[in-house]
Parts: sequence; structure tokens; C-alpha cells
Amino acid sequence: MKVFKTVKTIQDYIKLKKCRGSSIGFVPTMGYLHEGHLSLIRRAHKENDISVVSIFVNPTQFGPKEDYKKYPRDFKRDEKLSKQAGADLIFYPKVREIYPEGYRTYVDVKDITGTLCGASRPGHFTGVSTVVAKLFNTVQPDVAYFGQKDAQQAVVIKQMVRDINMDVKIKVMPIVREANGLAMSSRNRYLSAKERIDAPVLYESLKLARRLIKAGVQDVRSIRSQMSRIIRSKGSMRIEYISIVDKDNLKEIKRVKKDALIALAVKVGKTRLIDNIVIKGGI
Amino acid sequence: MKVFKTVKTIQDYIKLKKCRGSSIGFVPTMGYLHEGHLSLIRRAHKENDISVVSIFVNPTQFGPKEDYKKYPRDFKRDEKLSKQAGADLIFYPKVREIYPEGYRTYVDVKDITGTLCGASRPGHFTGVSTVVAKLFNTVQPDVAYFGQKDAQQAVVIKQMVRDINMDVKIKVMPIVREANGLAMSSRNRYLSAKERIDAPVLYESLKLARRLIKAGVQDVRSIRSQMSRIIRSKGSMRIEYISIVDKDNLKEIKRVKKDALIALAVKVGKTRLIDNIVIKGGI
Repeated sequence: MKVFKTVKTIQDYIKLKKCRGSSIGFVPTMGYLHEGHLSLIRRAHKENDISVVSIFVNPTQFGPKEDYKKYPRDFKRDEKLSKQAGADLIFYPKVREIYPEGYRTYVDVKDITGTLCGASRPGHFTGVSTVVAKLFNTVQPDVAYFGQKDAQQAVVIKQMVRDINMDVKIKVMPIVREANGLAMSSRNRYLSAKERIDAPVLYESLKLARRLIKAGVQDVRSIRSQMSRIIRSKGSMRIEYISIVDKDNLKEIKRVKKDALIALAVKVGKTRLIDNIVIKGGI
Repeated sequence: MKVFKTVKTIQDYIKLKKCRGSSIGFVPTMGYLHEGHLSLIRRAHKENDISVVSIFVNPTQFGPKEDYKKYPRDFKRDEKLSKQAGADLIFYPKVREIYPEGYRTYVDVKDITGTLCGASRPGHFTGVSTVVAKLFNTVQPDVAYFGQKDAQQAVVIKQMVRDINMDVKIKVMPIVREANGLAMSSRNRYLSAKERIDAPVLYESLKLARRLIKAGVQDVRSIRSQMSRIIRSKGSMRIEYISIVDKDNLKEIKRVKKDALIALAVKVGKTRLIDNIVIKGGI
């Protein structure tokens, strides 16, 4: 497995490989890899000649009061795990390599970035779409893999790729969960022992919503209020949003009639966690 | 010569050609080609295996009160001229092909787009960088050719390409002028007979600036006021700006000491014209 640290070296290397007919699968990450990331890397490895993982904690997608500085980093561990999962190349640039002095270009996806996580994290998705555009131009993947855990991110990236005609296929893979239902996240490491015990209630609330919908409840307010109730039954939970939206355009819906995305963000103590499920076909 | 009207068909065609080792030269235009465009196409033809011309009057780079609707269009003429100049492919999409229903992604280059033409044309350069990013992703050129006439555009595109790691080389070619010094522009056709006689004063003012600088004048205010005086000596001229800036970052300078870009925009009757020269080495 090779590790590249500059745009030019990996871009030239991959260009050569592509000319010789290799297909490129790409998994962009912020590192501190967990089973969710690894499932993407394994898939990229399985479906392509060359699988590439990028490890870059992207400063432009963090707000000024967010956890950019304390975001967990462990390159040696990530390198080992990536290799085990079948990665052929790692792209591991420094911040100055991605945002050199005088950097001033941003890729902005409008409308669908102002709701859900975008509402409380202004600028977050501009940071995401910008860095992903840069990474795509650098790695030139045929296929790029994202986790459904960041549901809004996946919708935004698909929109960007379609809109600006990037020649890459986006595959969104299922959420990987702990045995207790908690969605895998690098931020789970921030949780205290008590919070770890409480945190699975997020997924419980999503499963409750699914049961309600299956039982014929369509009214979104009613579903949200019942989800809210069980989340609040645990101490230390502060709900940022519970949204039930069209899974493609992220618009709020009032009644669940067809495919819907139920997404939530909750502060568990000081840690902000997100989770979601897609309800197929409503009722 | 082939004409393509959809992103997918030309993207697939060029991808295949690139895999077989062909180099791609690209000239993006808004059509109504003049000798300036043709000089770019000839160069693209000379330096690459395949030369591509796009013809697309891009609505997003026009302000609501600007001349999008009346911008001159003549595809048959453009097709013939492109072919004569050596173009191998023309990309000639409809507006809905470039901006389909639900389109919402924009590429924004900050700072250097707020001055010069950007000051009076808010949103103009977002439209330019967005469409050029899309065209680059579609045509996948090795080299793209732009005219120095749109000096700020060239600086913005170079910044975008560098910033988001697009794998394309930008070449900026000299302004082509009429015998009387007027810079070639598709908008020259808007000029009345009288305005055509007056319009060369723009280039006269730039040459005056060069003479002053060669003669030792460094003070920008003095140079601008003398330029302004000879432009105003013609009736029907309304100066939008005369700026003397660093040629790379477009920042205003106070004294001309090294390479400088002298750029202007003037309304000649109802027609907005731009022109510029680069002073090498100041004095």
C-alpha cells in the first residue's frame, strides 16, 4: 500500500493507472476509521482495480465553535486498518496542501444545504462539497463511496456531481451500527460511559418511527413527538432536530406517504450525534 | 467536424479518445466568433490532437438588466468559422442541458471577483467559473485557451483551476485588435457607425498610459486622470472604471513599479466595452 501526501503525486500516479485501464474506487474520510469506513473500503476494494482512501480532517467543514482541533486523529492506526480492508493507496495531505496560502474557491450547493444539519452548521456543506470536489479532481475516481450515516452529505454530493458534470458514480452504503444499535461514528469516542449507555435511544426512536408508520401513522408531527418523548426520557439529551423529509430533495413532508428520510441530530452531553433511517414506500 | 449537443455524448466520446492517447485542446466561447476566438481555435488545433470549441451563451453570467437575450447568435456561421480554424468538435448545448430543472451548484472564486468588472456585475464571475468548471468536467481538456481581452476572467479561471485541483493547463492568448486598435468583441456589433469611430480611443488611452509609464510616471492617479481625459474627449463615453492593478491578484496599486495590468470598462453609448494592457516591469 502506498501513501501519498501531495495532490500532484497522487494525481499523476492515478492518471497513469487510469490510462492503463485500471478502475478507481475512492473512499474519502476524515480518518479515525471505524467499521462504517471499513465497510466502504472493502466495497471499493471489491469493485475496483485500485481502491483509494483519503484521510483529511477538513477544517472548512467545521464551524468556529466546533471540534476541529479535538477531532480524533491516529494515522498509524488508520493506515493499518485501511490496508487490512484492502486499500491500495492512501492520500494523506497536510492542510496547507489542500488549502494553500491565497486559497479562495468554494463549491456551493444551494437550497438543500440550509436544512437539517445545515441549519445549525452554516458553511458546513460548502466545506464538504468544496473538499470533495477537490478530492475527486485529485483522485479521479470511477466510483466514490459514502456512508448513509451522513444522509444529507450524500444527497449534497450526488447533487454536486450531477450538476457540475463530474464523471464519477456515487454509491451510498448502509449505516453500520454497534450491537446496541448506536450508529458508528468517530465522535462516539467523546461519549462518557453513561452517555454510551443512553446513546442507543437515538436508533430506538428511529425504529419506533418505523413501527408507527408501519402501523398506519402518517402524521409527521405525531411521529416526531413520540420520538422526541423517548429521546428525552434519557437525561443529558438535547434534540437539535428531528426531521421527516423527502429522501431525495430533503424537503419537509407533512404526511408519510412514500419514501421518507427520518433524520435527527441530538447533543448527548457535549457530543453532537446524528442518525437516520429511510422508510421505504411509507404505508 | 462533429457537433455534440449533450454532456454525456461528448464526455463519453472524449473519454474514449483520451484513453487512446489523444490530447485535448479546448476553447470555450459564447459564439458569434471573431478573430480573437479564431486565434484561440487555431492555437488549440496546432497544439493538440483534438481541438474542441464550445458555443454556449451562458445565462448565469449575465445580470438581469444585461444583454443575455440580445447577445448575438449565429450557429451556422460559428460552425463554419470553427471548422476553417481547425476545430474537430463543437459542443453546442441548449440551456436546459447545462442547467436542468433543479440545478443548484455554483463554483465561487472569492476576493478577486469583487473588483473591476465584478464590482458592476455582481454574480457575473460566479456564472463564469461555474460554467467553465462544468465545461472542463465535460470536455476534460489537457489545455484550455482564453483571451487576454477578458483579463479578470483569465485570472479567475486560473485561480479556480489551481484551487480545486483541476487537471487542465490554462493558456491566455493576446488580444486581437481591429486595424484601428479596437479590441475584437462580439459586442462590437452593437456599435453605431459614430461609436465605431470613437471606440478606438479606449486603446489609445491604454497606449498613452504605457507611454507615460515608460517616461517615468509612476503615480496611478495621474495616469488614470490622463487616460480619463482622452476618453472623455469623445462624446457618448461613460467610464465605468479605469484600474491599475497587480496582474496576478488584481489588487489596486498606487505606484507602477513592476508588472501591472491596466484595465478599463467604458460604456460607449449603450454598449459596454472592456480593454486592457499589461505593462511589463513598470519602470
